[in-house]
Amino acid sequence: MSEARTRRRTRGGGGAARRAERSAVRIETAKYIERNIPNFEILNEEALEIIEANAETVLAEIGVNFVNNPAALERWREAGAEIEGERVRIPRGLARKLCETAPASFTQHARNPERNVVIGGRNLVLAPVYGPPFVRDLEGGRRYATMEDFRNFVKLGYMSKWLHHSGGTVCEPTDVPVNKRHLDMLHAHMTLSDKPFMGSVTEPSRAQDSVEMCEILFGKEFVQQNTVMTSLTNINSPLTFDDVMMGALEVYAKNNQACIVSPFIVGGAMAPVSVAGTLTQVLAEVLAGVAYSQLIRPGAPVIFGAFVTSIDMNSGAPTFGTPEASQILYGAGQLARRLGLPFRSGGGLCGSKLPDAQAAYETANTLNAALLGGVNFILHACGWLEGGLVSSYEKFVMDADQLGVLHKLAQGVTVDEDAQAMGAIAEVGPGGHYLGCAHTQANFKSAFWRSDLLDYKPFETWSEEGARDTQALAAERVKHLLATYEQPALDPAIAEALDDYVARKKASMEDAFV
Amino acid sequence: MSEARTRRRTRGGGGAARRAERSAVRIETAKYIERNIPNFEILNEEALEIIEANAETVLAEIGVNFVNNPAALERWREAGAEIEGERVRIPRGLARKLCETAPASFTQHARNPERNVVIGGRNLVLAPVYGPPFVRDLEGGRRYATMEDFRNFVKLGYMSKWLHHSGGTVCEPTDVPVNKRHLDMLHAHMTLSDKPFMGSVTEPSRAQDSVEMCEILFGKEFVQQNTVMTSLTNINSPLTFDDVMMGALEVYAKNNQACIVSPFIVGGAMAPVSVAGTLTQVLAEVLAGVAYSQLIRPGAPVIFGAFVTSIDMNSGAPTFGTPEASQILYGAGQLARRLGLPFRSGGGLCGSKLPDAQAAYETANTLNAALLGGVNFILHACGWLEGGLVSSYEKFVMDADQLGVLHKLAQGVTVDEDAQAMGAIAEVGPGGHYLGCAHTQANFKSAFWRSDLLDYKPFETWSEEGARDTQALAAERVKHLLATYEQPALDPAIAEALDDYVARKKASMEDAFV
Repeated sequence: MSEARTRRRTRGGGGAARRAERSAVRIETAKYIERNIPNFEILNEEALEIIEANAETVLAEIGVNFVNNPAALERWREAGAEIEGERVRIPRGLARKLCETAPASFTQHARNPERNVVIGGRNLVLAPVYGPPFVRDLEGGRRYATMEDFRNFVKLGYMSKWLHHSGGTVCEPTDVPVNKRHLDMLHAHMTLSDKPFMGSVTEPSRAQDSVEMCEILFGKEFVQQNTVMTSLTNINSPLTFDDVMMGALEVYAKNNQACIVSPFIVGGAMAPVSVAGTLTQVLAEVLAGVAYSQLIRPGAPVIFGAFVTSIDMNSGAPTFGTPEASQILYGAGQLARRLGLPFRSGGGLCGSKLPDAQAAYETANTLNAALLGGVNFILHACGWLEGGLVSSYEKFVMDADQLGVLHKLAQGVTVDEDAQAMGAIAEVGPGGHYLGCAHTQANFKSAFWRSDLLDYKPFETWSEEGARDTQALAAERVKHLLATYEQPALDPAIAEALDDYVARKKASMEDAFV
Repeated sequence: MSEARTRRRTRGGGGAARRAERSAVRIETAKYIERNIPNFEILNEEALEIIEANAETVLAEIGVNFVNNPAALERWREAGAEIEGERVRIPRGLARKLCETAPASFTQHARNPERNVVIGGRNLVLAPVYGPPFVRDLEGGRRYATMEDFRNFVKLGYMSKWLHHSGGTVCEPTDVPVNKRHLDMLHAHMTLSDKPFMGSVTEPSRAQDSVEMCEILFGKEFVQQNTVMTSLTNINSPLTFDDVMMGALEVYAKNNQACIVSPFIVGGAMAPVSVAGTLTQVLAEVLAGVAYSQLIRPGAPVIFGAFVTSIDMNSGAPTFGTPEASQILYGAGQLARRLGLPFRSGGGLCGSKLPDAQAAYETANTLNAALLGGVNFILHACGWLEGGLVSSYEKFVMDADQLGVLHKLAQGVTVDEDAQAMGAIAEVGPGGHYLGCAHTQANFKSAFWRSDLLDYKPFETWSEEGARDTQALAAERVKHLLATYEQPALDPAIAEALDDYVARKKASMEDAFV
């Protein structure tokens, strides 16, 4: 496959493309995380079996609704489900059986093959915040997001060492008509970054546009043979699959592109108030959604998603970084692994209005649970603020820095002869110190993860330099990154074709703002 | 035992005491955490066996130093160790054999029996910050700690629902002469709180004073039969046991009081730069220290401690909340469990100068690891700032609030019929919502943990109320708690006897300031 791509590129680009590629600044990006540590499993075998049996009962006796989607109902009928109006009742075992054709892991290709990610198995791929209509930064405060903000976040993602994925709607560019946004957003991901990205799901036609733009970027044949997009198709919990999201899923599955089939649940409102009840509903919903994707195209790549918040019983606000959210994440991870599917959950989730201590406690609680809970794809890994209403510039780089912690922790503990360090212990002996010994000198550089952002200075130095808090340090880093950003090289012929596609599509549409 | 205590109290106090107890404000304190979730185990069996074998090699071939302590050397010689100068070489298996008499878990009694804690097993007991010479708050900034600060932190600890323990040196009262501080500190813990507390370790004589003050508070016989103090005896890593700490340990072990035998390690400086090497040294040191406690008094309660930081390779500063620190915590927990000892590690550790996002990321990383790593006693669970140089008023209440997350997460997932919520899922059905259904109404109050501090309000309300960050909210909470604090009732005869003891002791000493 990579050979085919090389050929295509060379054909398409010629001398100018090769020169552009040679002169490009190389950005350091860590490989996706390959865990060498166990998963944390909160549910025992009995609990898992109860939840799985209950999910089958939900599908068989209560069923799910596929709304405004006669073709879906027909597909389900042919597969053996019982249809009544828009209700689909799925006999015990059928959905799980259909899920068997979905791959346990798959490669999402990036235009730079070094940035390809393998989603599934013991891996963890990190993608930034998705969806906020607002942005916030230290100087400008909170305001509606624009396309300029969108481009800035794509640039920050491209320059973030621990981020493997450019994401999708890193913020909503509210200054672009709703029906044209996806074109500009995809164009930004394709041209300002060389990391993998996500397709549009807000209309089936926009999913189709996403596929067509990828055909320009990767070549038509390559797209049919490989997965080059992941997309977020939310379920309308409880138990409802709307025609917009399912329409997008149909487009992606047909084209062998990946979908995250993800219940979106505010606990106690869209699912039962208990962890076990919520997990039952999540599993039933994902079983139905993934099975449906396999009815469209057996073998289409899908991800078991679970976005579940807790709720503040006083105000009804969704809450993040809470113990119940972690319990659901751990449990859903176990259910996904038993189903043999890649798992999406977690993120830098928080309810705070500011990138302050609340934001960091809640984010760290969620990120740690996601690493230990076996998550394969974290959406919202950085930059998420105010319950997802805001993309925060400062929090983007703060969280992105913390993602380095996950990388190192996931490596596990080496216990080879060098790591045992028996020679060093003997050399130093009681009362000595290790800083100068040969073992320390030889291993010092790789021994400890180091933040590129946080403050490790002595109090006096820190005071003299202005006694800045993390937000202030992050604001400085944002400025530095955006000022030094350089666009990754792209074959000019492809760039021109993308420009042309976007211009043509936009010209064919009236502006729509809802 | 509790019956004996009741008798003693009634005898000592009489009518005035009973009246005082009746009129006391009751503060809600959660029971210590009894985990219903598994431990996270980062090392496999082979790695554990290598580290254990290497630790035995360290003890047998390199040995440990017991400094300025001829009696200790003599005890070790009698036990079968090889002595050369101050070096003690312990034959393979001897230290582990001696550790067998140490209890796997023990009860530390509080003067209020409802506050007793059981340290060991699957339990987790939370104690506040220990040791900082400075304090910081939003209004006053950073300054030397005083006895007034000390009393304030004891009050905050007493009023913190999720804190089970009053701790020890919650800050260093630098306005009290060094040789008299322990008297005022213990007096504060004994009179301003009714939670369990820690004894002094800065001189063997101060450990003896701690025992004597406990004899006043609990009764002499009760103290000999029960553990009423835990104390922190640090090892001078690498492999060195000084006479001050060991002198204190000797006093406590003789009196059946608990010691945390805890290496204090800045990684790469006081231990090898690798995780496996550090774990080897930690295990060797704890084996030697705990074995020594059992030479003093077989069965004396001890805790396997591990305080290990990482280091910033640029500045040499200790760093916290890092992946290496978590790996060492997880590994040390496994080693402690295989040794059958309670385990102390973790805490609200951070290097930040302010209670900002850095502080919270690092703290949450550490607290999550401590919960999942099977820690039984967390010292520094709240209030620790700037690498332990500062006790922060705001961070104390911020961290103390987050400790609630650990309580709920540790409960695990209930999967009984009510939690399965199958009736609710059927009742609500596709497209409905759960807020009004009977199952939600019946379970809502206990379903979700709720912060008493963090902001869950809508953006508009939050803005109108001053757009405060977590630090500002915490400052308000500190003021509220200190303003509404009420001293727990204490038998006036005991209170008088404690006052008298402190006054007498102080009068017998010249002031010392180093």
